[in-house]
Amino acid sequence: MASSTAHPNHQLISSEDVEGTTVYDLGQDKVGEIDHLMIDKLSGRVIYAVMSFGGFLGLAHSHYPVPWAALKYDTGLQGFRTAITERQLKDVPEFSDDNWASDRNWESAVHRHYGVTPYWDASVGR
Amino acid sequence: MASSTAHPNHQLISSEDVEGTTVYDLGQDKVGEIDHLMIDKLSGRVIYAVMSFGGFLGLAHSHYPVPWAALKYDTGLQGFRTAITERQLKDVPEFSDDNWASDRNWESAVHRHYGVTPYWDASVGR
Repeated sequence: MASSTAHPNHQLISSEDVEGTTVYDLGQDKVGEIDHLMIDKLSGRVIYAVMSFGGFLGLAHSHYPVPWAALKYDTGLQGFRTAITERQLKDVPEFSDDNWASDRNWESAVHRHYGVTPYWDASVGR
Repeated sequence: MASSTAHPNHQLISSEDVEGTTVYDLGQDKVGEIDHLMIDKLSGRVIYAVMSFGGFLGLAHSHYPVPWAALKYDTGLQGFRTAITERQLKDVPEFSDDNWASDRNWESAVHRHYGVTPYWDASVGR
């Protein structure tokens, strides 16, 4: 697996290493970790980080899709930072584990909820 | 893990599902599969697919980084296609499993080798 291709000290990271990477709040506190990424097959862009939160927040789902634009990699922390709050997580628009990724209305709502520009807006990430 | 968030019939795919996805040549033949992805931590763009080829080609390495730009997802095949040939794989610029991802000279050479524009060129994928 990835052991044959180590990638130290570089801006590139293996998808296998992102899975499990810690996400911090704006302070030094761990808020959760990345379970897996959702990638646009055609463009190769990461669209969502699907996060888990260890269950301590009393959340309704085990995994929460967070728009990639709401995360920022911090090379010093070797982890991601987010300004998303516990309250925002709990108030996220209702979603189905099975089909949120094909529900454009929900995607629009969740991007608004977190205050980030939808990825299908041509100006994002470019 | 990803089982709690299924994503059928959509242009988004889980990183866990990309790992193991078949890569086909320009015909119907399987040439290998994707082992993992190398992602730019800051931009969230997939830069390389690190592929394995099952050993039948007599290759020197177990895994080969292939620029993302040399792959194209085929929704009909549910897999990726590439125009990369066995000869190109065998003639790829010599690399070290340990540090190719931080060797910009090698990265330049491999993009030239496969005839794709380097990802650090501002016009790529935008």
